[in-house]
Amino acid sequence: MDSIVKVKATAPMPEPAELNAAERLATLAFDDMRRVDALILDRLQSHVTLIPELARYLIEAGGKRVRPMITIAAANMIGCRDEAPIKLAAAVEFIHTATLLHDDVVDESGMRRGKAAANLVWGNASSVLVGDFLFARSFSLMVEAGSMKALGVLSAAASTIAEGEVRQLAAVKDTGVSVETYLEIIDAKTAALFAAAAQVAGIVAARPIVEEKALETYGRELGLAFQLVDDALDYDGAAAKLGKSVGDDFREGKVTLPVALSILSADDEQRAFWDRVIGQLDQHDGDFETALAYMREHKAIEATIEAAHNRAAKARQALAIFPANEWRLALEALASFVVTRAH
Amino acid sequence: MDSIVKVKATAPMPEPAELNAAERLATLAFDDMRRVDALILDRLQSHVTLIPELARYLIEAGGKRVRPMITIAAANMIGCRDEAPIKLAAAVEFIHTATLLHDDVVDESGMRRGKAAANLVWGNASSVLVGDFLFARSFSLMVEAGSMKALGVLSAAASTIAEGEVRQLAAVKDTGVSVETYLEIIDAKTAALFAAAAQVAGIVAARPIVEEKALETYGRELGLAFQLVDDALDYDGAAAKLGKSVGDDFREGKVTLPVALSILSADDEQRAFWDRVIGQLDQHDGDFETALAYMREHKAIEATIEAAHNRAAKARQALAIFPANEWRLALEALASFVVTRAH
Repeated sequence: MDSIVKVKATAPMPEPAELNAAERLATLAFDDMRRVDALILDRLQSHVTLIPELARYLIEAGGKRVRPMITIAAANMIGCRDEAPIKLAAAVEFIHTATLLHDDVVDESGMRRGKAAANLVWGNASSVLVGDFLFARSFSLMVEAGSMKALGVLSAAASTIAEGEVRQLAAVKDTGVSVETYLEIIDAKTAALFAAAAQVAGIVAARPIVEEKALETYGRELGLAFQLVDDALDYDGAAAKLGKSVGDDFREGKVTLPVALSILSADDEQRAFWDRVIGQLDQHDGDFETALAYMREHKAIEATIEAAHNRAAKARQALAIFPANEWRLALEALASFVVTRAH
Repeated sequence: MDSIVKVKATAPMPEPAELNAAERLATLAFDDMRRVDALILDRLQSHVTLIPELARYLIEAGGKRVRPMITIAAANMIGCRDEAPIKLAAAVEFIHTATLLHDDVVDESGMRRGKAAANLVWGNASSVLVGDFLFARSFSLMVEAGSMKALGVLSAAASTIAEGEVRQLAAVKDTGVSVETYLEIIDAKTAALFAAAAQVAGIVAARPIVEEKALETYGRELGLAFQLVDDALDYDGAAAKLGKSVGDDFREGKVTLPVALSILSADDEQRAFWDRVIGQLDQHDGDFETALAYMREHKAIEATIEAAHNRAAKARQALAIFPANEWRLALEALASFVVTRAH
């Protein structure tokens, strides 16, 4: 916690060597990920044509499949060449896609993966129901994978995600959200699925509990890093180029880390500003720019990015117990990658 | 199919003897259902207080727990006194409650179980997320029950429900919906879960496939009967007393059997009426009463209730292969019960 608040200002820049290393993971996992993609496309089929149509709109919009890739890479790192990780990877992506569809309804988002959000195209009702369909199909895929223990981990992750989302909803417009509460929220809504995605590889490979826990830690810390960067990018113009709406969190009154840190360091005038724009959601032209100026003054974005770097380092450390094969190196590179560019 | 359209008009009245028989099921299942209820209350706990609060609002509103009671009664009928049916019964009720929460968002309902629908009290976002939570927890309960086959049946039912709901959504305002399409929709959105609720009892009791299928048929036919009665009651003033909104389907432009049958028999003037009020959803004062008059003219409500009776008879017949113990008699009585009063 301390490491987040007491921050040395460093603005990390993408390092080309790390980007190349991350691309290596995609190359390594290429064949397995093609099988995952084929399974995803097969299992979202339905005689109700709207379902594959809407689901493909989102799934083919070019999500990077980070979560299923973690399952695949972790399984390969520990020498598991089963069919089970392929099934579980597809299940993980289905859970993720279902939550995206529901989040768009919850957040009333405008953009998703560089396109109009599905709920704007097909309506909230379709997004809710197709999300339910994908969620149900994810459990059918888990049944095919055949591991009751993996099913338990993923169903627990799914309820934790919902808890995190409800907490986030309750925390909207609450300028009193602490750094600790923020971390608990992102741990639930984002990191839990990353953690489960890694852990289930250890489960179906029947690895010792210490390895299963190390994979779980890798996923969790990576997920935290991922979300911290995401929340920083919502206050960063560079995100606009990546098809994300900048300023969504601000407009919705979400208290993410850049805001929580800015409030922590605010003087009376700044506190009144945050109370108005976040607490009362009373926003006018120029307020977003003022928020950015206050964040710059307190180095809140840099601190958020540094927190992400710390989490990524913990993710890499968790892998130390595994053989240093190309898959482990690629997973380590992924941890570096998520904090150095948008996702 | 024919039996629905070519109907002899008979308006069945509740028979006190049948009601008493149905009450016998509730009495028989009392102890097990108390365990199911305790499990439900335990598993909807969360440190995020809104979740149990919202879920209890719905669960304690006095749903009759018809679906979990089917699982419990079927298990007892075939002599299974395991813990697994208790867990699966709770899982079935969680799936059902999750779909109710999401349906209210999809339908923009005003009333549910005699109270304002949860989405009107807590907002759509909370209803979506708490539904997701309950859905996830239902799978955790299935994991505890320990049967991968039962998990497969229930996850398949869950995706079928979503398919049925999407189809129903697409069929709104479509005056061309056939009786066959209507039956396919209610088979998916309602009967699939009844069927699974009964079938899983046979699965965890490791009964021969013929018994498992008989239970599945019982559940499916009972579910169809149940939904047919529900759709008839939406055009019946008696439903208002039971805390249901009458005329919801009409106002939403849903083509249920009473409407589909009335359109089948409509003359030109009546067809123009249905095209306006359902096809264009252009409704004015007095239109609902006119719709009721046309339905009376073509005995569309009676035909719907008769179709329900036929389905209930098939449900009872499916049980013929089982020993005629008190549980089988009670399940038979339940099939009679659902068509003779509202639920």
